[in-house]
Amino acid sequence: MTYCVAIRLKAGMIFASDSRTSAGVDNISTFCKMHRFKRQGEREIFLLSAGNLGTTQEVLSVLRIEIERSEAQNILELESMFKVARKVGEIVRGVIARLSAHCQHGNVDFSCSFLLGGQIKGEEQRLFLIYAAGNFIEATHETAFFQVGELKYGKPILDRVINYATSVNNAIKCTLISFDSTMRSNLSVGLPLNLAFLPRQDEQIAEIATPLTHLIDENHESYQRLRQEWSLGLQQAFAQIHNPNWWDLP
Amino acid sequence: MTYCVAIRLKAGMIFASDSRTSAGVDNISTFCKMHRFKRQGEREIFLLSAGNLGTTQEVLSVLRIEIERSEAQNILELESMFKVARKVGEIVRGVIARLSAHCQHGNVDFSCSFLLGGQIKGEEQRLFLIYAAGNFIEATHETAFFQVGELKYGKPILDRVINYATSVNNAIKCTLISFDSTMRSNLSVGLPLNLAFLPRQDEQIAEIATPLTHLIDENHESYQRLRQEWSLGLQQAFAQIHNPNWWDLP
Repeated sequence: MTYCVAIRLKAGMIFASDSRTSAGVDNISTFCKMHRFKRQGEREIFLLSAGNLGTTQEVLSVLRIEIERSEAQNILELESMFKVARKVGEIVRGVIARLSAHCQHGNVDFSCSFLLGGQIKGEEQRLFLIYAAGNFIEATHETAFFQVGELKYGKPILDRVINYATSVNNAIKCTLISFDSTMRSNLSVGLPLNLAFLPRQDEQIAEIATPLTHLIDENHESYQRLRQEWSLGLQQAFAQIHNPNWWDLP
Repeated sequence: MTYCVAIRLKAGMIFASDSRTSAGVDNISTFCKMHRFKRQGEREIFLLSAGNLGTTQEVLSVLRIEIERSEAQNILELESMFKVARKVGEIVRGVIARLSAHCQHGNVDFSCSFLLGGQIKGEEQRLFLIYAAGNFIEATHETAFFQVGELKYGKPILDRVINYATSVNNAIKCTLISFDSTMRSNLSVGLPLNLAFLPRQDEQIAEIATPLTHLIDENHESYQRLRQEWSLGLQQAFAQIHNPNWWDLP
């Protein structure tokens, strides 16, 4: 399984992904699911991948080959994030169709999904969720975050905290809590986490900002402290709220 | 969708279920998913249902018909909760097999699951989770709760709080928070909630306790207060914990 979150804030974009890949609980390995494509100062594109690892790796390989060959419509050449989303969607659709057509026993799930976010000079920051069918949706001011993979355990805290005006540090704190909740409930989501922040640049400014990153493993002090304090804070919040005695129990 | 929780504590058993049924978001109605079968003082059996409403209603109808006809192996006659679980599992399997065999277009999901809990005189309290295949698992001291339906949004708080020794009022508080988180994230889980507590009786004592119940609707004062205080408590906990400035952002 996988868990990835991308948030589009007033102050910039946050990307976070776990790195556990499992083909059954007896076959676990570590793969980074955060992929960066850039032309320094001109564009920064993040792709976070979930779903069948064979499919997502092939999609990424196709994107990279197109760049290496300097093909006309590669994602470092396309003039808008919308066109990049459409390009990624087309490749996803093509890869899944080809794999499915060649699969003799029909019970393999080749599907995948991507979070695509970033900024191209002349545009504002944009965030997309791309489905296995190749179609996609875009984040707006009303919907500040997208998730892919094992999303439900960690969604309630995001729902309560995140909106377009949330500060970067609060959004990261909330994201890490969301990952903590997910990892406690689903063993197939695991450390290390990749975390990135892409500061928002006014589209009039010449240079796109360089993203700031962190790799969070089990020895990461700030993350461990946050986990422990959140656990304690939850217990205190739980203890402090109203507890009616429902049936006058002793 | 549906969300049901059953907890087996040292002090007794807690059952909780929502009441929203949806065949698409444009077709929502209210059905109680908590079903009680009893012989006063001799047995108290709770069945919480999730999944295809046609299937679960048919399973319950079969159980009730067997009781009305005083059939030898009806669930008010069987001598153990284990046998009741096996009986329910057999009926589930039979109903789904019959419905599937008659279905011309194969894309209807007839599956369902049940939480079965209660006490029969001479036995301790027991809790089972019955799957669509008719097989089932039983709660132990290590695993104090089961969920069926839309379980992921509300599982993290249960994981953090509930164990065999948790007090009844704390377990109910936690259960209601779990429902609140679920209902905030999934519109197809909704009020009113059915809540029941079955006090534990020593198996040597002649009489099985009578369950205590509450119906919690949107006007339920204690529930609304709990929701608001939890929301506030979470915000405070969130604000109070350590917030590293990840990249010395302004």
